[in-house]
Amino acid sequence: MQSFDLDKTDVSKLKQAISGDNELLKATLAEYHASEIAILFESISSDDQHRIINLLDVETASEVIAEMHEEAHPEELLLQLHPDKRTEIVEELDYDDATDIISQLEEHEQKEILEDLSEDDASSIRNLLSYDEKTAGGLMNTEVIRINLNLTKKDAIDEIIRQSEEIEEFYTVNVVDDANIFKGIVSLKDIIKAKGNAKITEMVNADVVYVKAETDQEEVAKLISQYNLTSIPVVNDEMHLLGRVTFDDVIDVLEDENTEDFLKISGVSEDEELSGNWIEAVKSRLPWLIINLGTAFLASAVVRHYENTLSHLAVLSAYMVIIAGMGGNAATQALAVTVRRISLNDLTDNQAYRTVLKEFTVGLINGAVTGLIVFIFAYFFDGKPMLGFVIFLAMTGNLVIAGITGSSIPLVLKRIGIDPAIASSIIITTFTDVFGFLLLLGLASKLLL
Amino acid sequence: MQSFDLDKTDVSKLKQAISGDNELLKATLAEYHASEIAILFESISSDDQHRIINLLDVETASEVIAEMHEEAHPEELLLQLHPDKRTEIVEELDYDDATDIISQLEEHEQKEILEDLSEDDASSIRNLLSYDEKTAGGLMNTEVIRINLNLTKKDAIDEIIRQSEEIEEFYTVNVVDDANIFKGIVSLKDIIKAKGNAKITEMVNADVVYVKAETDQEEVAKLISQYNLTSIPVVNDEMHLLGRVTFDDVIDVLEDENTEDFLKISGVSEDEELSGNWIEAVKSRLPWLIINLGTAFLASAVVRHYENTLSHLAVLSAYMVIIAGMGGNAATQALAVTVRRISLNDLTDNQAYRTVLKEFTVGLINGAVTGLIVFIFAYFFDGKPMLGFVIFLAMTGNLVIAGITGSSIPLVLKRIGIDPAIASSIIITTFTDVFGFLLLLGLASKLLL
Repeated sequence: MQSFDLDKTDVSKLKQAISGDNELLKATLAEYHASEIAILFESISSDDQHRIINLLDVETASEVIAEMHEEAHPEELLLQLHPDKRTEIVEELDYDDATDIISQLEEHEQKEILEDLSEDDASSIRNLLSYDEKTAGGLMNTEVIRINLNLTKKDAIDEIIRQSEEIEEFYTVNVVDDANIFKGIVSLKDIIKAKGNAKITEMVNADVVYVKAETDQEEVAKLISQYNLTSIPVVNDEMHLLGRVTFDDVIDVLEDENTEDFLKISGVSEDEELSGNWIEAVKSRLPWLIINLGTAFLASAVVRHYENTLSHLAVLSAYMVIIAGMGGNAATQALAVTVRRISLNDLTDNQAYRTVLKEFTVGLINGAVTGLIVFIFAYFFDGKPMLGFVIFLAMTGNLVIAGITGSSIPLVLKRIGIDPAIASSIIITTFTDVFGFLLLLGLASKLLL
Repeated sequence: MQSFDLDKTDVSKLKQAISGDNELLKATLAEYHASEIAILFESISSDDQHRIINLLDVETASEVIAEMHEEAHPEELLLQLHPDKRTEIVEELDYDDATDIISQLEEHEQKEILEDLSEDDASSIRNLLSYDEKTAGGLMNTEVIRINLNLTKKDAIDEIIRQSEEIEEFYTVNVVDDANIFKGIVSLKDIIKAKGNAKITEMVNADVVYVKAETDQEEVAKLISQYNLTSIPVVNDEMHLLGRVTFDDVIDVLEDENTEDFLKISGVSEDEELSGNWIEAVKSRLPWLIINLGTAFLASAVVRHYENTLSHLAVLSAYMVIIAGMGGNAATQALAVTVRRISLNDLTDNQAYRTVLKEFTVGLINGAVTGLIVFIFAYFFDGKPMLGFVIFLAMTGNLVIAGITGSSIPLVLKRIGIDPAIASSIIITTFTDVFGFLLLLGLASKLLL
């Protein structure tokens, strides 16, 4: 039994074993679970990964490859292996895992791998490759326990035991009729509890949640999480049972979706791999920075418009910095709360309206409080109460704009079917920059010159 | 069977039923799953919630209350109910759910509810209340299937069926010895497959992952997700089995942790309820804005220092805005990628070093490209090549600083044991503001005046 987390000791232990002979390495590997070896793989060279995969028995090797993070590129490791070893490993993999990995390869490489498989395996994987990666079909595993509605308790148990030779983990037993139409699920517990001559049809729970193959993965994740399901059946339009999506796939989906939102709101392309190199990072971020440059020119045009005011009162430049910085951060706050709320739960019209109203109020209060602090500073430090008053008004106004835009822009985007997280801090700070400068410099030119 | 998502039609259907008599309302409610009613509850008044809970049978009512989101305050609804109804519902709830809800109440209110319960239930809940909410102990359910190591197959199945009257959902069977020491788990499938006279001790899987009651919830979530577990056993220091944490709790934990990171990096207190009112929002955000005000004064002090330069060359103000905006956004990009990477996977020293190096390179390239664009603009629009050159240098330098600070600050915070997400955009933009202005205005005063 074990209860531990991998740490640096494990990494250096493995590295030491790698520098030794195969016997030592094998003995060291035996101490770890496949999913732990998959994590340790991130710290070693691909040559060493290759050597280790060849040392492991095929079952463990396939588990390691299945558990490797997408960003560690298991498909490249697979491609480097001897074709016989590779075929053994792919045939050992669950179809959904095999499909996930193979889908990352070029078409001719996919073909090369599939050609070596048994006709059965190859056609199952080819079938799964045809589904969009981000749908239930792309996530599902086709290996499910399915029994006929008309079986008796005893025959059902025999059938489940027979099928479970192939399918190691299962949480529910799917029930189909003679035409393979999905009729519901039954738990192993209920079968065991039933009387000896009872039929499955008496125990089946027909009131279950299921999805279509083309259902978006985010929707699948929401259903599994909302109904606390270990797995969800996937059917086609004719209600034929195609497979199941399990809770562990959904945990991965949720983490991926969260990463995407996290990056998008910060102006990073959702496709950037967190551990990618600088070339990928430049490709992902430069376009957003160039958009930002465009919006920054807009803000700077406002400043240019008041060049005369600024050259008469150069201290305004120092306050500009404060107004713009505060507006940007207040907008980011409102944006983060609103985007996160939308992504966890859709808002009704009424809730959306109240959210914007709330952010207006928050902006008004936070703007007035921080504006007052700056007013006091301008009064005592610069000795200019009227300047302080202008700054107070500009700060309050800008934080109100921050609250309104930070909340309403993602809500409007959602309403018109665009991902609200695209309303990144880059977009939102344009508004606070432009309006902040307009307020501060416009009021200053009217009231102070 | 069903496969649907709640939409506005469901909300208005329920509202219409609420305005009708109890019979209509009951009939409408019967169409929904408890977790769906819990979601619909977010759109109706607490009086209507109260009425509906009283109409539902106690099993459904307790499920609805268990499924209500923390932010919808199920504890307040519970408190409003008639004491008899309340006791019925609490006794129907799983201990972990009851504890979660009751823990939100004041101590005297907790006492009032616990006093009405049976001695058994009250002491179980009191025990769970003693664990920190954010640990395995705080998450766990104490109702688990546990069987003795020495049982035979037949006795084990009888015992599991007996215990499963109380425990509706279970995914694994826990095995203990005569002294209640946890010895491992066994799957129902393996028990069924075993020979008639086989003993549990022959089937038990002793190589399982477990946690202590005081293990942090984030660690529990990582283990469940890494090892694809449906549930994880919780033990005390003497290896007595205390309970289990299930995958559905972990999905909630992951979503909560993601929300916290999302808010923190945007300068919002992690405790702000997404659907909270404006008072909570002001309390959560104003302190951060005041910190931001302090750092903004720092940036504005740099501008003041160069007031003379600015009054000679007012157009610099317009470029200041661009340099600061770009630096802030580039820093936010580097920050988001780094924070997210740390939260999904700890980085080794070598990986941390390479991350900072990568961000340095990305900053250099993105700074040079966008700096060049501004240079061209300054050359043709303002006709000032030397000014353009100064801006090019300032932009490149500031984006390098953005990359270095955006990546190294969260890494250093993590190393010294502080949550890296605290390195919010507010903190990070201080650096790019201050250094951006120093670079631009410092170079301008040296090279242009």
